[in-house]
Formats: sequence, C-alpha cells, structure tokens
Amino acid sequence: MRDFSADTSALALNTATLGHNVDGQGAGWSPEQVIDACAARGFGGLVFWRREIGDRAVEIGERVRAAGMTVAGLCRAPFLAGPLVCGDDAAIMAEFRAAIDMAAALGAPVLTLVSGGVEPGSKGTRDSRMRLADRIARAADHAAGCGVALALEPLHPVYGGDRTCVMTVAEALDLCDAVAVPNLGIAVDVYHCWWDSTLPQVLADRARGRILGYHLCDWRADTRDVLLDRGMMGDGVADLKALRRAVEAAGYAGPCEVEVFSAADWWRRPPGEVLDTVVERFRTLC
Amino acid sequence: MRDFSADTSALALNTATLGHNVDGQGAGWSPEQVIDACAARGFGGLVFWRREIGDRAVEIGERVRAAGMTVAGLCRAPFLAGPLVCGDDAAIMAEFRAAIDMAAALGAPVLTLVSGGVEPGSKGTRDSRMRLADRIARAADHAAGCGVALALEPLHPVYGGDRTCVMTVAEALDLCDAVAVPNLGIAVDVYHCWWDSTLPQVLADRARGRILGYHLCDWRADTRDVLLDRGMMGDGVADLKALRRAVEAAGYAGPCEVEVFSAADWWRRPPGEVLDTVVERFRTLC
Repeated sequence: MRDFSADTSALALNTATLGHNVDGQGAGWSPEQVIDACAARGFGGLVFWRREIGDRAVEIGERVRAAGMTVAGLCRAPFLAGPLVCGDDAAIMAEFRAAIDMAAALGAPVLTLVSGGVEPGSKGTRDSRMRLADRIARAADHAAGCGVALALEPLHPVYGGDRTCVMTVAEALDLCDAVAVPNLGIAVDVYHCWWDSTLPQVLADRARGRILGYHLCDWRADTRDVLLDRGMMGDGVADLKALRRAVEAAGYAGPCEVEVFSAADWWRRPPGEVLDTVVERFRTLC
Repeated sequence: MRDFSADTSALALNTATLGHNVDGQGAGWSPEQVIDACAARGFGGLVFWRREIGDRAVEIGERVRAAGMTVAGLCRAPFLAGPLVCGDDAAIMAEFRAAIDMAAALGAPVLTLVSGGVEPGSKGTRDSRMRLADRIARAADHAAGCGVALALEPLHPVYGGDRTCVMTVAEALDLCDAVAVPNLGIAVDVYHCWWDSTLPQVLADRARGRILGYHLCDWRADTRDVLLDRGMMGDGVADLKALRRAVEAAGYAGPCEVEVFSAADWWRRPPGEVLDTVVERFRTLC
C-alpha cells in the first residue's frame, strides 16, 4: 500500500473548495493562480467548474499539465430532471453536450453528473429516474466519442426534492445497469454517502470498475446549512479512512478530490491557508 | 379494503401538528381542547408529547377514551446516544424509564424511540448503534412489564450527525434483530423514509409484525428548514399512497399518525383549520 502520509499525488482539488470566486467568497484567484498554488503543494490534479473555464478550456488544460498535474474532472452536467432543469428537453441536451465538449477540450476524463430532483407533477422518484436514464442514454455516445466518462453522483437524501432523484450508491448503480453503456459510472462523495452503513458491501459487490471519482469533505455533526456548510476533513463525523478503504477495495485507484462548500468558514479564509489545511488533513486523516 | 374516502377511524393526530404550544406557536390549546376537537372530526386516536402530559397521564388517557378515541402512542424516549443525550448513563436510563411509565399511565401501547446521533469522539455510526442497542436492551424488560412496545424510528439521514444513527428502515430492523426482544419494532415516517426506493421491498421481506407506527406528512421539494418545515400531506413529493400500500402490505393495520412540524406555515394557522385540512387531505390523498 502506498504511504499516504507523505504522498499527495492522489490528492486533487475541486476548485469549489476555494469559494467559486462568486458572491464575494474566495480570493478571486484566476485558474492560473489556483494551478500554481496546487502544483507548489504537490497536488496531483484539479477539478474545475464550467463557470471558471469559459472559452479557455484548451489553454487551461494545457496549463495544468505543464504544471505536472492532471485535469481530474469537470463539474458538472446540468440538472437532467426535476424542477431545476435549464429549459426544455432540447435546451437540457444541448447544455449536456456542451459540458461534455468542455470536458474533452480540457482533457478531463470524467464529467460529473447530478441528477436533479423530482419531476414536477410526479410523486416519489421513479418517474424522475426514468427521465434521467433516458437523457444520460441519449448523451452517452457523444461522450464516448469525446473520450469522456460520465460519473453519476448520488446526492444526500436531503436534496431529494429538488436536486437529486438518486440518493444512494446502490440507486446510482441500478441506473448504470439500466443505461448499460461502458462510459457511465459513479462518483462516491463523503458528504452524500457517509451515513450509508451498506456502502462498503454495495461497493464490494457491485462497483468494481465503475467508480469514477471519490470526493472528500466531512459531515459536521451540527450542520447549519445543507448546501454550503460542509466540513473540512476531520471537522465532522464521517469515517474517512473506512470510506477510502471501501472505494479502494472496490478497485478505485483514481484521485481523492477535495470538495468543500463552506460559505461561513473555509470560503472566508485565505486560499493558501485552505490549501495547506487540505494537504495536512489529507496526509493525516484520509 | 376499507373505504378510506369516508373512514377516518385510522387517522391519529400527533399533537406536534398543532405547534406544541411552545414559542408562541399553536393556539395554546389544552389537551382537553385537542381531544374534543379531534373527536368531533372523527379522528381515531391521539399521540401526545411528554411535555404536554406532566403528572396528568392517567386523567388524560381516560379523557381520550371517554371521547371514543385511543391514545395511539407517546413521543418520545430521550436521545439514547450521540451529542444530545440528557446526562450520564444513569440519567438517560432514568428518563427512558420515566417515558415508559408515562406511556403506561396514559394507556399508550407504543413509545416512540429516536436514537440520537454519533457518539462524541467516534466516527461513522457503528459505535453509536452499539450504544443505542445496549440502552434499548436494558429498558426493554421494564417496558414489557408495563405493556409498552418500543418503536424505533429511523430518521432522515440529514439528522445523522446529532439526532440519529439509524437512518433507514433496514438499519432499524437490523437493530431490532440485534436486540431481539418481542416488544421492539419500528415506526415508518414519510418524512424520514419517502426517498428510500428500497423501502417497499425491505418492508415486505423483513417488517411483518414489526411495524408499530406509520407517520404521515410530506417532503416539500423546496424544504427550507430540515427540522421545522415539513409539508402537510399533498404539499410535497412523497408518494403517499404507495407508502401506505407498502406498510399495509407488510401487515400494518394500526393508525396513520399525522405529524407535521411546520413553524412557518401550519403552526401559524388556527388549529381548527389545521385539523380540517388533515382530515380532508387524509381522505383524498393518503
């Protein structure tokens, strides 16, 4: 087993951890500043959000690789079902394809998918998951042609009304089974999955070769806001070592992507301090 | 099958739906006023909270039965694990026994248990569930002697840090299996369980004879506060008819207990209007 106490090559930064540079949060760093700061600290990769890339995907991807890192992924496809979709079916699919194209231009091997919530007018999640499966199936060939894998991320059940209709890894794997294309897998996020006591068994039984991302943060026992109060690793109750053992036991050997949405705490700190903390916590706790 | 469109005998009110008479919410109705208002509307039962009963348990229980209804249950035992427990082990067990005694004095056949969250200093939920199982096991004989069954209620994973270490019906049944006493079962609450796509199968496979309560409300798609923004039946995305079919297919024939915590909406309305709405929604949607 690798000695993770010294090795940060598996560590990737999801740029949301630095506050998205929106609403006065974060330091307003450019992608180039983030790249340099992560390279200096030994990060192995970066995951960007589409809003940060604009029309500079090729340039930014090359900049990351020139700094000795990889673009580990891109966040994210648009909501594919539920009340928060971005328009009619044609608009949703066009934005989905645009996200795939951006991932390809960046050189990101993985695009993260979040499902979106319950379709207006329906009850429960079944109809919404059928709609979701249909839209993924219709984009999967285009993604394959671009060399992009799609990572469906189950979200915490608290988002079950508006943001997700896929709440567990088991449900995400069910959906992968239903769509049945080789470039669709799952992302396992500590925040969304830490509570699921069946997770190690589900991963061992069903996830081999299908885990496309592992996202690190923590669940604060006194979570004050379910969207923007995630904990840094160690600040909460998730069993981080057990979760990593479970994803790696299922064959995952990709990056550990730190993604902390924290409007009241980490987003208010200097980015350099946040990155130093990420490295230290990763080395000692993850 | 009963004609539920006319029959409200299965309908029980959890008094929390009227605002608990605390913090300026609700109408400040006495237990007697609640009893009369529910009897007049054809409710079959009532579920009280301990704070409303004080030392009047026998008197209030008799008053409910004189009005032609049953005391369907009592909320609730103290947190049995995690950061919100009420003191040391002796204090927790004393309060647990006091809650059992109050249920017996009321003539309530069921006491609701919520587990409490993650034990301070531990990670994940395993240690906390062992602590919980131990405390339930140590109180179960006393409850049996009082004729009181214990209904362990899995809570929504959003409460996983501080209020629960049992997030799903399957986990609650696992814990019942571990404790293995005849007077321990589960409560199924729409708010906590609506999102779980495995629920019908889990209930069919494992819950026969073990469902001691079914709690009605709804999950609002735009839930604004995870503690006090529950929806009235019909205001959200839960598939209420499918959930009731699932609990009844597993043999449950007890009351449907309406429990709506709604500080910003229903608790601000006149209690008579709330009760009328409960009856109408139950008849048409549940």
